[in-house]
Amino acid sequence: MGGEAAKWILMTTARTPTNIAVIKYWGKRDETLILPINDSISVTLDPTHLCTTTTVSVSPSFDQDRMWLNGKEISLQGGRFQSCLREIRARAQDVEDKKKGVHIKKEDWQNLRLHIASHNNFPTAAGLASSAAGLACLVFSLAKLMNLKEDNSQLSAIARQGSGSACRSLYGGFVKWDMGKEDNGSDSLAIQLADEKHWDELVIIIAVVSARQKETSSTSGMRDTVESSALIQHRAKEVVPKRIVQMEEAIRNRDFPSFVRLTCTDSNQFHAVCLDTYPPIFYMNDTSHRIISGVEKWNRAEGTPQVAYTFDAGPNAVMIARNRKTAALLLQRLLYNFPPHTDTDLDSYIIGDKSILKDAGIKDMKDVEALTPPPEVKDNIPYAQKSKGDVSYFICTRPGGGPVVLSDETQALLGPLTGLPK
Amino acid sequence: MGGEAAKWILMTTARTPTNIAVIKYWGKRDETLILPINDSISVTLDPTHLCTTTTVSVSPSFDQDRMWLNGKEISLQGGRFQSCLREIRARAQDVEDKKKGVHIKKEDWQNLRLHIASHNNFPTAAGLASSAAGLACLVFSLAKLMNLKEDNSQLSAIARQGSGSACRSLYGGFVKWDMGKEDNGSDSLAIQLADEKHWDELVIIIAVVSARQKETSSTSGMRDTVESSALIQHRAKEVVPKRIVQMEEAIRNRDFPSFVRLTCTDSNQFHAVCLDTYPPIFYMNDTSHRIISGVEKWNRAEGTPQVAYTFDAGPNAVMIARNRKTAALLLQRLLYNFPPHTDTDLDSYIIGDKSILKDAGIKDMKDVEALTPPPEVKDNIPYAQKSKGDVSYFICTRPGGGPVVLSDETQALLGPLTGLPK
Repeated sequence: MGGEAAKWILMTTARTPTNIAVIKYWGKRDETLILPINDSISVTLDPTHLCTTTTVSVSPSFDQDRMWLNGKEISLQGGRFQSCLREIRARAQDVEDKKKGVHIKKEDWQNLRLHIASHNNFPTAAGLASSAAGLACLVFSLAKLMNLKEDNSQLSAIARQGSGSACRSLYGGFVKWDMGKEDNGSDSLAIQLADEKHWDELVIIIAVVSARQKETSSTSGMRDTVESSALIQHRAKEVVPKRIVQMEEAIRNRDFPSFVRLTCTDSNQFHAVCLDTYPPIFYMNDTSHRIISGVEKWNRAEGTPQVAYTFDAGPNAVMIARNRKTAALLLQRLLYNFPPHTDTDLDSYIIGDKSILKDAGIKDMKDVEALTPPPEVKDNIPYAQKSKGDVSYFICTRPGGGPVVLSDETQALLGPLTGLPK
Repeated sequence: MGGEAAKWILMTTARTPTNIAVIKYWGKRDETLILPINDSISVTLDPTHLCTTTTVSVSPSFDQDRMWLNGKEISLQGGRFQSCLREIRARAQDVEDKKKGVHIKKEDWQNLRLHIASHNNFPTAAGLASSAAGLACLVFSLAKLMNLKEDNSQLSAIARQGSGSACRSLYGGFVKWDMGKEDNGSDSLAIQLADEKHWDELVIIIAVVSARQKETSSTSGMRDTVESSALIQHRAKEVVPKRIVQMEEAIRNRDFPSFVRLTCTDSNQFHAVCLDTYPPIFYMNDTSHRIISGVEKWNRAEGTPQVAYTFDAGPNAVMIARNRKTAALLLQRLLYNFPPHTDTDLDSYIIGDKSILKDAGIKDMKDVEALTPPPEVKDNIPYAQKSKGDVSYFICTRPGGGPVVLSDETQALLGPLTGLPK
């Protein structure tokens, strides 16, 4: 093991995006390896607005593997973390840092301990697939630190064992998680269908919906669905395979109407099988339903779809608008229907890419209060009578790129000399 | 046509119950004849608390068919009314009333006009299958007036053409609507599985839930589901046939745990295929979800099911308790979770069989305010902080009997001399 005084620390920092499934993953055929019962397809979200940053470090002075999430130490003992660490260490290669005079042989990695710090640039508890971005970032950054030869697709099969949907965060743009056929899961991995430049007109607005009830975790929820739903196998075997082919084609051809139809129906069917679970699982609430009704009414009124919606295991809506102009019209509608509490700062109510707000002609709360009902809506509820606070905030973003190494050391989350959170 | 001065009026008054499906009807294979894509099973509700009363009358002095619903004249031009009237007239027999000196020959019925008055003893707009009871009562009372030879099962095939689920209101107790095989619908009719005395311990509590949104009619809703859901055919062909067999057995054996499991899962699956419709249909709202969660939690805590829930095309919950004791405990829980507005009179908040309220030890609003959380609930929300008014009112009832003729003329809804609403 290189270095004389064993005082060196090597570290790598990486940033990984989150993703939103447009053809949903729900149900495992293998709980330990995390092998799904159907393929899924996702859109990677721009890491500028939603991402995980992770710094991984190694030093002979570390006496145990440790991890901090958003500054707070968490346990690495969970089976899923352990699976990822084991799989990566098994593939580690020789690493040399001439500047620091460090040479690590691949067999040394089994005996070297790691410090890991991870941070989400969005609220972890908001139900925005933080575990997907987190596990993907952990695997990606460790792979870079340990000089793995595997490409991102092969790494995705490791990230999958940490959190199923994490495998889709190894690429930007449009990503398919192939369920694979092998019992050992070696072919259950992500492949990029198209990068984020392929369809760069799309704009994404996320409504973070205020939830009253505690939600069922997706791990136990999908287990219950597979065990008790009379519809899930039909979905997995008969419905999803056709939709996967159609969605790949819609993405390839930038066919927005087909993209909307497939995205919306597949989100609805995922929630349908949750409802068909016993006891039933409800992820969407009345606010989610109102968002769907509003989008459907608008799409119908326009004759051709303007916006797709999709909901993961929670009440938050992810809306995908065909272009910036549509996104500005969507944001006007959302603010008209879901105004913030009176004392809310607009700047904290619309976060992410605020230029959409500018396009919508909204500068301050006075502009929100002055919004008139969109043409497809018949009732004009006075602003004062509207129920407020059903949505916590909105995030404006777009499809984005995959994981990247951040070479600027100032972005590291661990101190270069201490190996502890900065 | 008998009678000298043609001044006579003959009339019949009948009362018909409503019913709640425990294996749901959703989807037609023939829109005109109203032929379903699967069998369904229902429980008839006690007409003391929920029923339609209809008076039908005939007189040579009537110059057109007319109908009044809850005192207001409505059109009989709809295809469904016309189907029922045509089918019944075609089967009319000779009628003789010696006292009035009236003799109607069967061929006369084609030229005689009818006056019909109908009244529900519950709010029509509350989404409590008023059309089922109404059409069943129309067909039943006309069949009695016109002296039809058909039995109730054959009459149910006529009522079916007025409103699908109406066919199940021709019997009390537990009723199966056999979907039939014939193209002309002659074998798509109701049969009684067991009368109301077979399982007379059951108690039913209906929560009439306050709805914000206008609902999709079940006619257009089920059409949209059949056209767009990728799951409905699997439900109709693979899932329901097995459940029908199991439900018949559960009813035969008074097997309450199986009855609960089948009732709840089939209600949930019906709402699942609604959600899988495009655009999606939401009948349940957050209050419905909270009712389900409360019942599921209680059932789990007790180890054996205490209460079944089922929801039709609206947010109202129909809960079936295993016996009176359980019903009293259920009512306590419902009042704890869903207190009325402070200014509500308890007497108008719990209607129907009020003896359940007495069993629950609740005499007035003070008793409601003093309710403590049930053992399976961990949080104790102070009464003052609870959201009130999510439920409009509760109806306590039980399984009940089928249609009956009311021979007491004072119960007729039409004047004996005028043939107009009293």
